[in-house]
Amino acid sequence: MAGSPFGWIDEQERVRRGAGLVRTLRPRPSSNPLLDLASNDYLGLTRHPEITGGAADAALRWGGGATGSRLVTGTTELHAELERELAEFCGFEAALVLSSGYAANLAAVTALAPHGSLIVSDASNHASLIDGCRLARGATQVVPHADPDAVRKALDTHQGQAVVVSDSVFSVDGDAVPLAELARVAREFGAGLIVDDAHGLGVLGDGGRGAPQAAGLSGADDTVVTVTLSKSFGSQGGAVLGPARVIGHLVNTARTFIFDTGLAPAAAGAALAALRLLRREPERAERARAVASSLHELLTAEGLQAVRPDAAVVSVRAPSPEEAVRWAADCREAGLAVGCFRPPSVPDGISRLRLTARADLTDDQIAQAVRVISRKAPDSAFIARS
Amino acid sequence: MAGSPFGWIDEQERVRRGAGLVRTLRPRPSSNPLLDLASNDYLGLTRHPEITGGAADAALRWGGGATGSRLVTGTTELHAELERELAEFCGFEAALVLSSGYAANLAAVTALAPHGSLIVSDASNHASLIDGCRLARGATQVVPHADPDAVRKALDTHQGQAVVVSDSVFSVDGDAVPLAELARVAREFGAGLIVDDAHGLGVLGDGGRGAPQAAGLSGADDTVVTVTLSKSFGSQGGAVLGPARVIGHLVNTARTFIFDTGLAPAAAGAALAALRLLRREPERAERARAVASSLHELLTAEGLQAVRPDAAVVSVRAPSPEEAVRWAADCREAGLAVGCFRPPSVPDGISRLRLTARADLTDDQIAQAVRVISRKAPDSAFIARS
Repeated sequence: MAGSPFGWIDEQERVRRGAGLVRTLRPRPSSNPLLDLASNDYLGLTRHPEITGGAADAALRWGGGATGSRLVTGTTELHAELERELAEFCGFEAALVLSSGYAANLAAVTALAPHGSLIVSDASNHASLIDGCRLARGATQVVPHADPDAVRKALDTHQGQAVVVSDSVFSVDGDAVPLAELARVAREFGAGLIVDDAHGLGVLGDGGRGAPQAAGLSGADDTVVTVTLSKSFGSQGGAVLGPARVIGHLVNTARTFIFDTGLAPAAAGAALAALRLLRREPERAERARAVASSLHELLTAEGLQAVRPDAAVVSVRAPSPEEAVRWAADCREAGLAVGCFRPPSVPDGISRLRLTARADLTDDQIAQAVRVISRKAPDSAFIARS
Repeated sequence: MAGSPFGWIDEQERVRRGAGLVRTLRPRPSSNPLLDLASNDYLGLTRHPEITGGAADAALRWGGGATGSRLVTGTTELHAELERELAEFCGFEAALVLSSGYAANLAAVTALAPHGSLIVSDASNHASLIDGCRLARGATQVVPHADPDAVRKALDTHQGQAVVVSDSVFSVDGDAVPLAELARVAREFGAGLIVDDAHGLGVLGDGGRGAPQAAGLSGADDTVVTVTLSKSFGSQGGAVLGPARVIGHLVNTARTFIFDTGLAPAAAGAALAALRLLRREPERAERARAVASSLHELLTAEGLQAVRPDAAVVSVRAPSPEEAVRWAADCREAGLAVGCFRPPSVPDGISRLRLTARADLTDDQIAQAVRVISRKAPDSAFIARS
């Protein structure tokens, strides 16, 4: 046969290039001179000495890796400690730590949506929840974004087990689902609720206990929460929180738990350090929210189209993918790192700058960021004023 | 509605309990008194000071986490260094590091098996490859285990793009696929080859360069290799190795790459340290294989049913799940940690003890392990002698 079997990739690459949608990796140095509004380090903890020290100590004490599946040799007392403290902090009976938030979502959705069940999934859910739905044996019905009425209608069509699956805060626009209402609807039909609180933990709820805690769902026997340790907690990994029976079920059936190596001790150590620090300094959560509000207010005052943030993500509309890329590059040139979301990473095809509020940003840094973003904005990014 | 929506779990739990198949986590202390033949730490590196030091240094220098997706802020120069050295070591054009081997397999299979393509998948493939097939848009045909003729027949039925997917070394029995022959068959039909070398890297090939290198496939433009950093390399994470066009394609399309936080710096640092140490001490790979051979010979001489190992995993048949559990527990009682594989973790329903050879086991430790395993074996585990 002539040519490589992977030759078809070149044609896709050409199409992507033509559409201005090629992504490349940009390795950063260890001391980054840029003002960072692009990372998900919402509490500014990833470089905190207690967190880096927690990682280093754990590696030195427990080893570079977990050495096996959590069910064989991969569970250390450090994992158990993290699970205990995490469950307690968020107010759930039990927790299970996995190697990523992606793995946690695949585990929760596949294990809790057996054959014959219905999964009702928000149209803007994270890729990992969507992949969980695809892998689950249950049937998925996608409903319009953040719409409890649509969830009610979907549940009403189904007899038997059902589970409602939603992000608490959506990564792209930083908006929140009406969680308490969603939980009421699920309960009305006896359905379970799986909430991905990746962007809520550390930011929402009392002292950062997360969106489910803020919605009064802590410890509910019909609610399962997934979180990530790689955002507010400045580490890596994910976890599922919920009733002990659910966690026991995951230990016995969730493929991304059973057939994966346990989380590295360094990551568990860093996350545990972050959790303890947040318990000591609960005001960090509030500060992250305040920074996000400031960013939104100041950008809106400049005439830019920013979405009112429900947590720490502030999304600003860009006119096109090309202009979004240029805008972000110009900001970078001016010393400011911002996220740039383009298709296919955005469900609605609208490109955005994505800013993340960090609890450790000063008011001066906020003002500076807004100045740069506004000065570098393409004309068509501003709302037309009459 | 009465009861929790997750109440159905209790009935499944009861069935599992009745069948002796309940799994529970057993947290281990940091200094484990057991002789470890259960972990996947094939080269004995996870506690090596260069590896734990590599993890600790990276955490202190780069932070507790990668802070974002690899495409936003999650790529450090450390990630780039690891990818460069890993690709070079295994003889491929490029490499891409993900947060786990599971994520690497999902990425490779989904990105390389588009709509209309055929995936030919070995019946004993790892769960992550199977989930990759389920998530991919292509159609999957499962073929009998380690059977290139069956692969040929499957490819012969299909017009258009195809990809053959297989573990190099199978986790349960430690047997290898006839890789060179499999590659020949794939080539005959212009199909791509995806090889999961999780249990080959560090053990097979020149100085641990892996099964694909041993089979003459390094650098082939039709071969993609996935590896894990959590076994021989004593860390956490996974990687995809292959032609630069394939790696670029993954960067742009693989969901478990794009929508996941980058690997924590500590894990990247530990893996890089392990890779460099292995390059300096290539004899570790050979020693791991020699230890496995010794284990097999000695256990077979005792009359136990051990599978001849092709890498560092030695599988010993147990008469039943209950006896496998009791056998493993008795070994543990006697100071020896061994793996115990039961349904549903084994594709054929046969329970086993699973032993892993480590390069740093002494001959005395090998003899001790064999003594304990043999003494604690149920009578029916021995081959009947006439």
